[in-house]
Amino acid sequence: MEAVKAYELELELRQVRELRKAIELKMRELEYAEGIITATKAERKLYRAFADLLIEVTKDEAIEHIERMRLAYKRELERLREKEKEIMEKLSKLSS
Amino acid sequence: MEAVKAYELELELRQVRELRKAIELKMRELEYAEGIITATKAERKLYRAFADLLIEVTKDEAIEHIERMRLAYKRELERLREKEKEIMEKLSKLSS
Amino acid sequence: MEAVKAYELELELRQVRELRKAIELKMRELEYAEGIITATKAERKLYRAFADLLIEVTKDEAIEHIERMRLAYKRELERLREKEKEIMEKLSKLSS
Amino acid sequence: MEAVKAYELELELRQVRELRKAIELKMRELEYAEGIITATKAERKLYRAFADLLIEVTKDEAIEHIERMRLAYKRELERLREKEKEIMEKLSKLSS
Repeated sequence: MEAVKAYELELELRQVRELRKAIELKMRELEYAEGIITATKAERKLYRAFADLLIEVTKDEAIEHIERMRLAYKRELERLREKEKEIMEKLSKLSS
Repeated sequence: MEAVKAYELELELRQVRELRKAIELKMRELEYAEGIITATKAERKLYRAFADLLIEVTKDEAIEHIERMRLAYKRELERLREKEKEIMEKLSKLSS
Repeated sequence: MEAVKAYELELELRQVRELRKAIELKMRELEYAEGIITATKAERKLYRAFADLLIEVTKDEAIEHIERMRLAYKRELERLREKEKEIMEKLSKLSS
Repeated sequence: MEAVKAYELELELRQVRELRKAIELKMRELEYAEGIITATKAERKLYRAFADLLIEVTKDEAIEHIERMRLAYKRELERLREKEKEIMEKLSKLSS
């Protein structure tokens, strides 16, 4: 029974970590994008993807979107790190 | 045998729920896109993605696409909620 | 041993079917896109996605791409249908 | 115990191979894109995707991006091939 519990916890831990890495990747991409958008004076056309639709957005709209996403990602990353810690504590109790 | 059956039903339930959440997310994205498209007078360029091809569409075409998808998603969500209920009934019968 | 073999075959069958459905979906999307591109006289801007890069393409390039993909998808679908038939034959032998 | 170990190694091997194929596909797509970008004199509009944002880029920026990604992918492919070899060696030791 304990082996099954440990297996399930390890599976959950892996899923939480994959989700965390996926969010960290999206966050880095958006921060990189922000660097490009704000670095140049030359106007670049910008689009935002919504499901299968692309909509032209202004520079200000794009930066506002990035800032909002950055905050949402930060909160989500904190939540996931908390969860990782909890699972690892449960695992260490199981194995002790 | 019953444990295997319950495990399979729980797996199916999780898949149905993930599918439902993915559709709800796409629906919210398209509704958000509709808000942006219709909120401003300024013309924004719009594209629709078909596999790896992007095609420029007009505002009317984009809104028509969103309305059609919204109906299709609603029907699919109802079907998935029915399915969830069925699986949960089967599970409660197994455990009783 | 036979139960394990049957389980593996069913898993393989499900993967082959998911792959087939994914290809059928892409093919329908491209055919739908072709309809839109060829239906109107008005020029629409077109892009093709290559990994994370979008490149503007002409109408002729887009149609040529669709035709080439259609052929590739048809061949792949035939191969997958053959594979499905083979797996189902193996399964029916196991259960007989 | 050995059967479980072999199963885990085979699962890991499959994941490494899927990752390798995904990277090889992205690399081929970018190389194909480079061919299109550099083949014609006519200027094509280009965009790069960062998460859900598309940013217009110049021809030089796109080519620089492709070159940088090509190097990163090559390193990653070497690392994955090393890993594949290691796993296969462990598997052959288990079965001998």
